[in-house]
Amino acid sequence: MALTRLALICLLVHLCCFGVLVRSVSGAKARHFEWEVEYMYGAPDCLENVVMGINGQFPGPTIKARAGDTVVVHLTNKLHTEGVVIHWHGIRQLGTPWADGTASISQCAINPGETFVYRFKVDKAGTYFYHGHYGMQRSAGLYGLLIVDVEEGKKEPFKYDGEFNLLLSDWWHKGVHEQEVDLSANPMRWIGEPQSLLINGRGQFNCSLAAAHNSGSGGRLGCKFRGNEKCAPNILHVQPNKTYRLRVASTTALASLNLAIGNHKMVMVEADGNYLQPFSVNDFDIYSGETYSVLFHTDQNPSDNYWISVGVRGRQPGTAQGLAILHYQTTTASKLPTLAPPQTPLWNDYVHSKSFSKKVLALSGSPKPPTNKHRRIFLLNTQNRINGYTKWAINNVSLTLPPTPYLGSIKHDFSEAFDQKSPPDTFLNTYDIMRPPSNPNATYGNGVYMLKFNNTIDVILQNANALNANVSEIHPWHLHGHDFWVLGYGEGKFSKKDEKKLNLKNPPLRNTVVIFPYGWTALRFVTDNPGVWAFHCHIEPHLHMGMGVVFAEGVHLVGKIPNEALSCGLTGKMLMGEKHN
Amino acid sequence: MALTRLALICLLVHLCCFGVLVRSVSGAKARHFEWEVEYMYGAPDCLENVVMGINGQFPGPTIKARAGDTVVVHLTNKLHTEGVVIHWHGIRQLGTPWADGTASISQCAINPGETFVYRFKVDKAGTYFYHGHYGMQRSAGLYGLLIVDVEEGKKEPFKYDGEFNLLLSDWWHKGVHEQEVDLSANPMRWIGEPQSLLINGRGQFNCSLAAAHNSGSGGRLGCKFRGNEKCAPNILHVQPNKTYRLRVASTTALASLNLAIGNHKMVMVEADGNYLQPFSVNDFDIYSGETYSVLFHTDQNPSDNYWISVGVRGRQPGTAQGLAILHYQTTTASKLPTLAPPQTPLWNDYVHSKSFSKKVLALSGSPKPPTNKHRRIFLLNTQNRINGYTKWAINNVSLTLPPTPYLGSIKHDFSEAFDQKSPPDTFLNTYDIMRPPSNPNATYGNGVYMLKFNNTIDVILQNANALNANVSEIHPWHLHGHDFWVLGYGEGKFSKKDEKKLNLKNPPLRNTVVIFPYGWTALRFVTDNPGVWAFHCHIEPHLHMGMGVVFAEGVHLVGKIPNEALSCGLTGKMLMGEKHN
Repeated sequence: MALTRLALICLLVHLCCFGVLVRSVSGAKARHFEWEVEYMYGAPDCLENVVMGINGQFPGPTIKARAGDTVVVHLTNKLHTEGVVIHWHGIRQLGTPWADGTASISQCAINPGETFVYRFKVDKAGTYFYHGHYGMQRSAGLYGLLIVDVEEGKKEPFKYDGEFNLLLSDWWHKGVHEQEVDLSANPMRWIGEPQSLLINGRGQFNCSLAAAHNSGSGGRLGCKFRGNEKCAPNILHVQPNKTYRLRVASTTALASLNLAIGNHKMVMVEADGNYLQPFSVNDFDIYSGETYSVLFHTDQNPSDNYWISVGVRGRQPGTAQGLAILHYQTTTASKLPTLAPPQTPLWNDYVHSKSFSKKVLALSGSPKPPTNKHRRIFLLNTQNRINGYTKWAINNVSLTLPPTPYLGSIKHDFSEAFDQKSPPDTFLNTYDIMRPPSNPNATYGNGVYMLKFNNTIDVILQNANALNANVSEIHPWHLHGHDFWVLGYGEGKFSKKDEKKLNLKNPPLRNTVVIFPYGWTALRFVTDNPGVWAFHCHIEPHLHMGMGVVFAEGVHLVGKIPNEALSCGLTGKMLMGEKHN
Repeated sequence: MALTRLALICLLVHLCCFGVLVRSVSGAKARHFEWEVEYMYGAPDCLENVVMGINGQFPGPTIKARAGDTVVVHLTNKLHTEGVVIHWHGIRQLGTPWADGTASISQCAINPGETFVYRFKVDKAGTYFYHGHYGMQRSAGLYGLLIVDVEEGKKEPFKYDGEFNLLLSDWWHKGVHEQEVDLSANPMRWIGEPQSLLINGRGQFNCSLAAAHNSGSGGRLGCKFRGNEKCAPNILHVQPNKTYRLRVASTTALASLNLAIGNHKMVMVEADGNYLQPFSVNDFDIYSGETYSVLFHTDQNPSDNYWISVGVRGRQPGTAQGLAILHYQTTTASKLPTLAPPQTPLWNDYVHSKSFSKKVLALSGSPKPPTNKHRRIFLLNTQNRINGYTKWAINNVSLTLPPTPYLGSIKHDFSEAFDQKSPPDTFLNTYDIMRPPSNPNATYGNGVYMLKFNNTIDVILQNANALNANVSEIHPWHLHGHDFWVLGYGEGKFSKKDEKKLNLKNPPLRNTVVIFPYGWTALRFVTDNPGVWAFHCHIEPHLHMGMGVVFAEGVHLVGKIPNEALSCGLTGKMLMGEKHN
């Protein structure tokens, strides 16, 4: 009997081990999630408000996977009248372009009550996130983290003892439905600066965490937290003399941010799922759509705690810092830091920002860009008017997405589904980027940049003056389906002489890059991923106002698109059999 | 030359006349409308708010047609992320059940950017309206009037010198998206009484029109209107000693109303598109979903103006009267009426309400109901709980609509699209309708009452106590695709002895009928209209909380359903050809 039991245990152990071995040999695993998206009450900044949640959580659950795994999310829309999609930001969707989660581009929005299955491979370790990509549902709170670890048995090119995730966002008290009406009104009503900055969905609007340090806390009283409030600040519990990895992602609707940890230096090691040549900073900028990993060493006085703070960059701030607490477990968590929270650099200290951006370079040994380009596309970023409506436009075209997703309409050659005329590859040479547009009238459009497959494409993002004099804004541009190499940044209008300065040696791979006011940014990518891919300013209201373009490549090579991704618009109507009547 | 011109004119006149003749011989005309639905800013009760508008108008445009005409509405959804449909309330959709405009029942919601063509015959003269029938979009302001005149050359059974339309609604300052979250929350957050009553989309929240008459105007100051404000009261300009027809429709989300005109008696002549045996009233009740035509004679002092007022019935009112002005053109329009606005009867004076309802009888010569029924369905109306969520249920089933519209899924026999088990035809005989439900737990369901074609169906709507003791609410029930005969109203639980009292002689034809607190209402209809038809409480939050059932009849006889009505859910997925991959 004892022997039998032992044999059974052995068998179980053997099976277990065998199971593990199988996984370890094949490597990859499928990770299944059942998600329901709904509106619910929350209090992101301590003030009760409606938020978009997943399975009752805001922010949505963090997905953890390993490189090579397949993530399978069964997403059910529990909204009442709204469609929904989720974009997996930074995941290239190799072979699964219909799972990119962009309404009107990769799929039909999921109708209320329906379930769509997102199934895609996370092929590359890194810090990613996901978010709504329909209307302004990202602003409503539809977002969460997606962390991909290296394959089992493989190692990162740096070491650490523990890790933390910080998902940064900004928050308005006005609901997104009303924000959409505001932005679409004539005259446009600007949504203004956010009421709060959130770290992992937590901010403090009606009290000041930092009041003790700061008589200038706008008269806000100190926060009284017991600690279990949903808007109480995140506390990162650390041991002294260890190295931690901090994964930071920004899904802000508007705010460009800067993050610092009181008294702690940081080393930048990863950006958008790509390794960086490590460099040390006291603080770093992070634009909407970007992710970074930084390492920090807990080498400070272990009887103290320290603030982690984020503040607004690039716009005159009207929002209090977002705060979290670095807690040395050698002291009590509730002890307020002795030092005041680190101050963000002056909002318009672009020298600081540019200096940081230019230090972001690929880890040596990273993939290098092809030496030559096949095509170069200049994209002029301007604020314009169309019949009195304020819009953003690229080469004078303000993007209005069509009801039929491009992926289906291009594959099935439904030419009436969108403008067949390509938008322009460049803008007038005489355009004065330093002044408001002399002719501010733009046009609506939904044409596509049809890119040859396996071509090398250069894009020069050219910033310009907005409608008001002496205003040029920051725009973080995000490309779907690809990483691109950032070849360089420059001032004024891109010119011949700038070409020679482009960095082909160690440009970083990113999926998001910023253009600075009155400047340009050059990037390069290879059209090796069949699909239709959005490329757009990641500022939610800017995209809503038309600031994006659409790239299509190798769509004839795309495999079977699930019916559910096509059952709307012309594809829904035209592909439906006649048999049913 | 002159001759030639004359000949040309003759030819044109001839062609014109010929055109008119053709129309006059064939009678019917197609009336085309191009509509865009969007959110926009308005000020329905003088307070700025987001409203749902059509072509920039709130309420939507009034459709005018003649009996026999075909109405063709090209409805484009200009919302950002929401689907939309429009129900043509009171129109039976004979032969066009897919044009009934009920999401999840007759069609897929129209996606943003898409256009759906509603094409249907208005076969019967009468006072109708249209409204959103998805989520709570009716509450958001998606409604308007649909007036059908008698065929050219035909006459109404009454005479009048002019006519006016009044569309009644109620208005909340909280947006409907938030209202939906409130009603779906656990615990449920009730939306409360409306902030304002609107007449033709106009109310006055922040001032009192009647302040001059009423020291008890809640401290509200008198309104200062120049007259061109969008929330200034409607003025009905009349001549003395004439007879006018007032068409009144109520599309309230919640409020039951009572309407009176200062010093003027009215004669009820039409209800829901059916003629009444005329009777005279000082005021009349109108429940959400109902329409009436009344005649009044301008026989009062012509140097005075008079208030038209509406007030809340059946719920303890928290809302000021809605007001309009009857202006004798023999005086100035800006002159305030001498008499105070008529007061609504006490909110809980049900004797008054019942007395009125029972006077509503068919004009002699109207179609009579079949003498015998084939099936009788008892529908018990209860408020319940499901896992802590507050719901309304019918025979213990709270309706949750499926993502695939029934019309398509029944026609194509997609049995997995909804519960195949029919909901019950009756409830426990022992149920005590005078007390809160002893077992308040209900279940969700989306089963269908499958009705045999060309059968006579009796429905006994049985009211009961809600969750709180001594509360039983008013519910106006609306049937799609049909008029029904109202056979009677009664107190308490319907019993054998009530059967003999049913009115088969001159019951009125209606599409909406009320059940009074703790009472029952009996109705009869014939299943002669192939399609799937909602039957539900017309109170928007009650329907949202599950208060409805679905009837299907003769679906195999339904003609070709447009693809656009089917391209969602299972029909979207299953009817889509494989050819496309």
